[in-house]
Amino acid sequence: MLAYLDNSATTRPFDEVIETMGELSRECYGNPSSLHSLGLSAERVIRSAKEVLMRSIGAKEGRFIFTSGGTESDNLAILGSVLSAVRRSPECVTTKIEHPAVSEAFAYLSSIGADCHYVGVDARGVVDLKEMEQTLSPRTMLVSVMLVNNEVGSIQPIEEISRMMKRICPEALLHVDAVQAFGKVPISVDKMGIDLLSVSGHKIHGPKGIGGLYIRHPNRLKPIVFGGHQEDNFRSGTQNTTAIGGFAKAVERIVEQPEEPMRLAALKQRMLEKLSKLSDIKINGGDKETSAPHIINISIKNAKSEVLLHSLETRGVFVSTGSACSSNKPSLSPVLSAMGVSRADIDCAIRISLGSDNDEEQVDYAAQVICEEAETLRELFR
Amino acid sequence: MLAYLDNSATTRPFDEVIETMGELSRECYGNPSSLHSLGLSAERVIRSAKEVLMRSIGAKEGRFIFTSGGTESDNLAILGSVLSAVRRSPECVTTKIEHPAVSEAFAYLSSIGADCHYVGVDARGVVDLKEMEQTLSPRTMLVSVMLVNNEVGSIQPIEEISRMMKRICPEALLHVDAVQAFGKVPISVDKMGIDLLSVSGHKIHGPKGIGGLYIRHPNRLKPIVFGGHQEDNFRSGTQNTTAIGGFAKAVERIVEQPEEPMRLAALKQRMLEKLSKLSDIKINGGDKETSAPHIINISIKNAKSEVLLHSLETRGVFVSTGSACSSNKPSLSPVLSAMGVSRADIDCAIRISLGSDNDEEQVDYAAQVICEEAETLRELFR
Repeated sequence: MLAYLDNSATTRPFDEVIETMGELSRECYGNPSSLHSLGLSAERVIRSAKEVLMRSIGAKEGRFIFTSGGTESDNLAILGSVLSAVRRSPECVTTKIEHPAVSEAFAYLSSIGADCHYVGVDARGVVDLKEMEQTLSPRTMLVSVMLVNNEVGSIQPIEEISRMMKRICPEALLHVDAVQAFGKVPISVDKMGIDLLSVSGHKIHGPKGIGGLYIRHPNRLKPIVFGGHQEDNFRSGTQNTTAIGGFAKAVERIVEQPEEPMRLAALKQRMLEKLSKLSDIKINGGDKETSAPHIINISIKNAKSEVLLHSLETRGVFVSTGSACSSNKPSLSPVLSAMGVSRADIDCAIRISLGSDNDEEQVDYAAQVICEEAETLRELFR
Repeated sequence: MLAYLDNSATTRPFDEVIETMGELSRECYGNPSSLHSLGLSAERVIRSAKEVLMRSIGAKEGRFIFTSGGTESDNLAILGSVLSAVRRSPECVTTKIEHPAVSEAFAYLSSIGADCHYVGVDARGVVDLKEMEQTLSPRTMLVSVMLVNNEVGSIQPIEEISRMMKRICPEALLHVDAVQAFGKVPISVDKMGIDLLSVSGHKIHGPKGIGGLYIRHPNRLKPIVFGGHQEDNFRSGTQNTTAIGGFAKAVERIVEQPEEPMRLAALKQRMLEKLSKLSDIKINGGDKETSAPHIINISIKNAKSEVLLHSLETRGVFVSTGSACSSNKPSLSPVLSAMGVSRADIDCAIRISLGSDNDEEQVDYAAQVICEEAETLRELFR
């Protein structure tokens, strides 16, 4: 049996997404910027995809533009709203548990003169609102907080932060990396007071190489890549109609299945119950209320995660240690560190992330394999 | 009959490219950064694609990285090699006929303090080597010259420029936008002395949303987008395995068909002969020796190009006015202006660009339709 439980790294595209991409490649290959009808029909695909995306994030005003993925969306949101003011040392606030696409963009801003602040989190991986309040100031220009953390699944109190900003720094922009949240927890940029929101295709069974950015105030964002002025001049480069259409197809399916997050939450609960048979384990991340339905981060003490990962895959169970995106730079997970997880517990932490392809049978099989392999490892290294 | 003659805007992907993308989406969906075997098999696809790309551009050393397309490649090459030195007003040299992905990146550099110079071209659209020589100086840090112009097809004397640079500014980097040249004219970065070379998938019947950059000196380039450190840290973001595999498939087919540029050149010659029946026309661009085999730019006097374009498409013939990428900002083509083409001739210039799907029958049909529709237009507006 195969149980792919690394859906927060990437997902298998839905069959209808793959079909849509094939059709668009064959039939709708025109350049959306071309003036003839082959261009116009490509442009129509993009326009209708934007409507699908706008509706899916509860946006009545503002714009949605397509990018090459979540990383580009995050960079455009962050650099595009601050870079032009960098000589005035703009104050930028984020958290200690952001995805590298946000934290590394902040590191770059910091290196060229921005005044960057990193707010901590509690043991559940939820941002410390008191510290956030103390950090924000009328000088704050940009706040970037993810909606769901990619390593532990903790949900961040975006609405509270947004209200806080209205009080302390009403002019500041709120950027939310919703790459892991999209399709899993409710999103309404209007209700939640979000100015910039990043999403990605391949985390929701859509295509790789496509993402998007919601922009509430187009006049407050500048492009970071220059060229043919596509996507309202925010993102130059021939639009990837094929992937855009595939992305919209995945979003449509998600919108049509509002019960999917509940199904995932039930699978997660089932997995947690079965894993609780293991002694000496620790769940890293929030309780039910502050945790996304698809991510489990668990430290299985004395079973080193990298070794466990490989013994699991020999039996068809695929999980991850930390996030895939940081595995290029192996080091202690900054997320777990910020949550106060001990070094020993970080070393034996695995992430199990569920997706639409998973079912109860897979969960049962995977839980059994994880328990067995973990016990074997513990025996070996006793 | 359908004659799609706008292949310089974008091409229809080869069937085997579409199939490869479908297969990779289904079978090889892992995140290349994941540590398990699904990640490794994705990484293997990318590694082998890089070998295909390196061979195809005659590169024995240096690196090839994948980007989201030609525009990102150009921006990364230009901004990534100059941005960190921008406070010292680096001298950057380009031409007056570059694609907006280059010219707009230069405009941005200029706006933040770089010392940018734009070298002119002759009536054929070939860069003026004397002016280039006068413009280069020991202070020059970056030179960016395209290999084939996207609007008129003129081939630029890259080897001469490279030799000139070795003499005048040996430390400067030479960037070449080869998006229109790739697969059409011979490229060898080693023989031609190219330090950075941009290519794109969708111009060679590969996927949209994928491009690449050859980098001879990795230590002299900095990323412009930050995150998970993928692609040797030059390009963060989950790699688009699907499109990368599709891109490599298109390149393999091009490499397997070395006679294709000659076939295109014969089609172009055939088209030119048939169009020569029209009175009052002017070919904008080089003679045979200095012109790519797939692009014709022709001014059909007194037949306004935008009107002609639309009457052609009603009969299944698709051409363009200027380049698709600049049609978002309608204005006089800077390329034709730089070549000294009159305003009246620019207004009636169309671009016919050939691709692998075109054959003699299509060329004959299109030439006849163009002649007929142009004459009708001339009658109407007499």
